[in-house]
Amino acid sequence: MSLDHVTLKPHDRLARALAPELAGVDALIRERMASDHAPRIPEVTAHLIEAGGKRLRPMLTIAAAKLCGYEGAHHLRLATTVEFIHTATLLHDDVVDDSEQRRGRPTANLLWDNTSSVLVGDYLFARAFQLMVECESLQVLDILSNAAATIAEGEVLQLTTLRNLSTDEATYERVIRGKTAALFSAATQSGAVIAGAPEDRVAALHRYGDALGMAFQIVDDFLDYGGAGDGIGKNLGDDFREGKPTLPLIRALARADDAERAFWTRVIAKRDQRPGDLEHAMEILRRTGALESARQSALDWVATAREALHSLPDDPLREMLDDLAGYVVERVI
Amino acid sequence: MSLDHVTLKPHDRLARALAPELAGVDALIRERMASDHAPRIPEVTAHLIEAGGKRLRPMLTIAAAKLCGYEGAHHLRLATTVEFIHTATLLHDDVVDDSEQRRGRPTANLLWDNTSSVLVGDYLFARAFQLMVECESLQVLDILSNAAATIAEGEVLQLTTLRNLSTDEATYERVIRGKTAALFSAATQSGAVIAGAPEDRVAALHRYGDALGMAFQIVDDFLDYGGAGDGIGKNLGDDFREGKPTLPLIRALARADDAERAFWTRVIAKRDQRPGDLEHAMEILRRTGALESARQSALDWVATAREALHSLPDDPLREMLDDLAGYVVERVI
Repeated sequence: MSLDHVTLKPHDRLARALAPELAGVDALIRERMASDHAPRIPEVTAHLIEAGGKRLRPMLTIAAAKLCGYEGAHHLRLATTVEFIHTATLLHDDVVDDSEQRRGRPTANLLWDNTSSVLVGDYLFARAFQLMVECESLQVLDILSNAAATIAEGEVLQLTTLRNLSTDEATYERVIRGKTAALFSAATQSGAVIAGAPEDRVAALHRYGDALGMAFQIVDDFLDYGGAGDGIGKNLGDDFREGKPTLPLIRALARADDAERAFWTRVIAKRDQRPGDLEHAMEILRRTGALESARQSALDWVATAREALHSLPDDPLREMLDDLAGYVVERVI
Repeated sequence: MSLDHVTLKPHDRLARALAPELAGVDALIRERMASDHAPRIPEVTAHLIEAGGKRLRPMLTIAAAKLCGYEGAHHLRLATTVEFIHTATLLHDDVVDDSEQRRGRPTANLLWDNTSSVLVGDYLFARAFQLMVECESLQVLDILSNAAATIAEGEVLQLTTLRNLSTDEATYERVIRGKTAALFSAATQSGAVIAGAPEDRVAALHRYGDALGMAFQIVDDFLDYGGAGDGIGKNLGDDFREGKPTLPLIRALARADDAERAFWTRVIAKRDQRPGDLEHAMEILRRTGALESARQSALDWVATAREALHSLPDDPLREMLDDLAGYVVERVI
């Protein structure tokens, strides 16, 4: 275990600790993704679900339930629910972003078409919905239906911020809460609720998931301007090319001089982008401290996530969740 | 009332009888469609929801609940749920079909873009999901989650039948059950369940909704080859152009001679369509009796729908549902 601690990344240690449950989730995924009548469904989803996703969200649900002493089987259904919702949003995002690559593979909408991405995404949402109904907890259904609305609202809100240089930080936070944190917090919170945990523990695990998700997305947005394209299976400069006002850009705009403002207006608001513009953008973000300031915000969220764990009982799983929060930002140190 | 009977169409009489409840549904639609943060949502949906839809599905839910003696307010939430699901599938269909017109207006994906259609559709699904959770009935959630899966599976199945001349009638039935009948039957069944109706009445109202939906969709597919484009807000020959194997086409293929088979292979399987092909297709469908045979199948479903109503208590609403079933096919007599 101590050797593992040195050599394995936190999510790999979590995956090892939860191996039996994750095997159960994989079995449920295969079973519920199947369709007797529409073989294209498993074809499209297998592409995404087998593509080496880290099963991060299912692990959050299972870890939360186990930390609250759960011994039933509903947490596997909820973990599968959460992975299906995640996969469905990826499918719909592929249509939306016209993106050409996801996790280092061609996206479903290039391999298939927009139509399949939309409809198979809808199918996964419906299957997720069936799975959560099977857990027979109205409180869990309430959590997950609210998360679904927050996710969809955040996605639409993000659309309206594209190329919009007056996007403020409050709007950005709403966007990334919808995009990432809402499902993270629903994952941990529903795990606690299905275990029958007391309210304060449910609230703590919700807070942990929310803060972890916020940190995770800020780091993702940060890496778009500075990470290695290989390491994260996402192309450097994607957000830049789409004109997405992410935190580094919002911070840079707040401290821009006239020349910089003119630059951002051309490349983001007018999306008139030329060779060398991405490199120039990265140079501004570094020089003005905007990137460093975004990294600091991610670290603040990590601190919030870790603090939320304090009230939970001492447990190896709690330690792993704590390490996971730290690791999210280590990616960019 | 007897004058109404002569002058008003069945769904108009139903709308008049359920006017207070429909006003409640309209209020809920406006309230739940709103988004403080993403004003594009009501912009996109208002376009569809205000576009003169007949509120047929909400009326089915309300009528079923009232026929079962319901006096609460949950049936309005379920009726709104059903309308939101319907609207969300229309938005996603617009992406899918690349259709240019819906209910006589430009579709959302031309007025806005594919992206908005996908994401606002997701938002409506999520809002529908929240509304049904508020009804606090696991049985209703079970019905609606199963309907959602049947709908999505039917849509994907339909994709795989495009241009496929070997599509059989069993597959066609699964497609149209997903496309139309599953939501009709979920509408009537959930209305009965929320009213606490006994099982046999729940089953009868499910059967009515299913059969009405099957008849409705067969008629729609029939009109694509023979109705007046104006009357139904849908362009004549849409299915033909997309290469959709609907019932008239499947029946015509079963009795096709070599020349006809060669024609269908060219225009549907290869989608090599030339001026005059639609007119020639319509001529074959009429001459071979394929259209008449499809109309007969719709009439059979209407008979099934009406029979399902027999076990229900005598009530003006039951009479209106009976007339409604008859009217579905009158459109093509």
